[in-house]
Amino acid sequence: MNFSASDHAMMARALRLAERAAFTTRPNPMVGCVIAQGDEVVGEGWHQRKGGPHAEVFALQAAGKRARGATAYVTLEPCAHTGSTGPCADALIAAGVGRVVGAMRDPFPQVDGAGFEKLRAAGIAVECGLMEAQARELNRGFLSRVERGRPWLRVKLAMSLDGRTAMASGDSKWISGDAARRDVHQWRARSGAILTGAGTVLADDPQLTVRLEQGVDYVPPLRVVLDPGLATVARGRVREGDAPTLYLHAPDTKPPREMRIEHIAVPVQGGRFDLDAVLKLLAARGINEVQLEAGATLAGAFLSAGLVDELLLYIAPVLLGERARPLFDGLHIDAMTERLQLQAVDSRRIGDDHRLLLRPMPA
Amino acid sequence: MNFSASDHAMMARALRLAERAAFTTRPNPMVGCVIAQGDEVVGEGWHQRKGGPHAEVFALQAAGKRARGATAYVTLEPCAHTGSTGPCADALIAAGVGRVVGAMRDPFPQVDGAGFEKLRAAGIAVECGLMEAQARELNRGFLSRVERGRPWLRVKLAMSLDGRTAMASGDSKWISGDAARRDVHQWRARSGAILTGAGTVLADDPQLTVRLEQGVDYVPPLRVVLDPGLATVARGRVREGDAPTLYLHAPDTKPPREMRIEHIAVPVQGGRFDLDAVLKLLAARGINEVQLEAGATLAGAFLSAGLVDELLLYIAPVLLGERARPLFDGLHIDAMTERLQLQAVDSRRIGDDHRLLLRPMPA
Repeated sequence: MNFSASDHAMMARALRLAERAAFTTRPNPMVGCVIAQGDEVVGEGWHQRKGGPHAEVFALQAAGKRARGATAYVTLEPCAHTGSTGPCADALIAAGVGRVVGAMRDPFPQVDGAGFEKLRAAGIAVECGLMEAQARELNRGFLSRVERGRPWLRVKLAMSLDGRTAMASGDSKWISGDAARRDVHQWRARSGAILTGAGTVLADDPQLTVRLEQGVDYVPPLRVVLDPGLATVARGRVREGDAPTLYLHAPDTKPPREMRIEHIAVPVQGGRFDLDAVLKLLAARGINEVQLEAGATLAGAFLSAGLVDELLLYIAPVLLGERARPLFDGLHIDAMTERLQLQAVDSRRIGDDHRLLLRPMPA
Repeated sequence: MNFSASDHAMMARALRLAERAAFTTRPNPMVGCVIAQGDEVVGEGWHQRKGGPHAEVFALQAAGKRARGATAYVTLEPCAHTGSTGPCADALIAAGVGRVVGAMRDPFPQVDGAGFEKLRAAGIAVECGLMEAQARELNRGFLSRVERGRPWLRVKLAMSLDGRTAMASGDSKWISGDAARRDVHQWRARSGAILTGAGTVLADDPQLTVRLEQGVDYVPPLRVVLDPGLATVARGRVREGDAPTLYLHAPDTKPPREMRIEHIAVPVQGGRFDLDAVLKLLAARGINEVQLEAGATLAGAFLSAGLVDELLLYIAPVLLGERARPLFDGLHIDAMTERLQLQAVDSRRIGDDHRLLLRPMPA
């Protein structure tokens, strides 16, 4: 497929529009739409919130009659089914657009090619695959849930230069600086769930809520505590505030009768949670992205299980020494050839710290 | 002192000229000189090599008669004494320059204000302190040796994301990538000495020579091996090639009779080298900057002794696990309040690795 420079510019614009809903659109994917007559944008829109209109609807509304014969750029295949809203494919056909350029097919079972098919059947020129990599990157959470049946797992860790996350005593306040701690909230806001362990609740008593600048809209992520024996349910700020909280416990643990917070039993193997089952459970609840904010033990367990999709690492310019706790517990590598290779997809300075976003290299 | 934008531009140019000799001018400081008539540069030069002409001489030669009434920008106070060459202050006076702007006073005992004094006595307007911080940064090695009696110590380490420098077995080849390994040679080239320990010689057998692109001139740094018992003198590439090698050993070790490589006994305390004495010895030999390329033990010992001036850290996007060797051995910190705070003065991506240049924060 040969796309023009103008096609690329329009799709890039649609992708930026889509991302505006990163904090609000869950569990739906982020979608942007630009309607253009040649180089002129005549309408644009993005899907803002589950239950609200889709991107195409906003864009067609803005374009009005100028949609006739125009090209519609969509970051994801238009839906062909009636969900909370009518099918977008029908709306595009009714508006008389001449051409639809999509970044990628929607793998969601009720779409999965049917949207493009409907458009083609109506005589509209359909092209797909423009900036697909960027579109997949944008919706990596949604795609992970739909295609793999588990959320995209991001592990957030703050460490010292010498790779330590806490003192031997467990003290980890504060390794990273103010700016880094503020930055974390942006990542929380785009996550469907913030996952932690009982150890972190006991040691740090985090709220795990999103605190953003005033006026920034977001849907509060679910706070999930892995607590086999439900040892922490009587305490902790993680149960307070407006955001929902979910405790996952071992099957043989009996929840206290008065426990009002949601709790679910999850299979345990050899005293440890079946982490794959944990993620599947969260996917079934419509969670696209999970952010793990826990200590070295849980982070190491997810990593050893091959379940980590990305590592959000804040490196503070301090040394904590060899007695401090390692980045990952239980990561046993004996030879250089067994080392775990990652790829930095983003790196920047945040205040005095360095932030790296890394992903494991495909084996 | 009020300096104009033009003054700043000229001094910045002089500093860049000075740095051209970073690989060749040792043990002398890097010095650059720009002679300008208003905004027009009429001559420039830099000190290239010990024994060769000083920066001012090159610049005055280039300026010729146009030096008369001009302003001379010098990154370091002009010398007033006759060393390998005649006093630069005299040359500036003879050329009839009208004004001299210096970045900083030269603390070298034979200059130390006398150069500026001579110029003033000849009726020349002298101003000092323009871009002094940058000038001090440039010659931090020379200044350390002259002002503190020990070289500037840079510790080079290549580590994994989780702060590990080698596998438990000692294997450390290759944590960092090609580009990072090439980059190290630029830092070696500006060092007067590359320091290592017997353990690294045994484990890695490094050459510790400078390998730069063809045509780049440099003075080979002295290779220094800390080897209390002279256990490694019979082997190792560190003894081979054109660069000089110096072994430092314990006072009670008897060097083998046939040993042709230079060796000096250094005080040992509790089985460990007196690291302060090691650095003083190197300063006495005219070493401005020392680059330590050793394992976690020696790096940790220098760090614990408070003798590390900067940390050149290459962070590779790999995980080596908790069994691998730490960044620094013997760095015992028990509470977060005792953590060692550093400051990143430079950070950039080098190939797949990240390079940080850090300095301990003043206590």
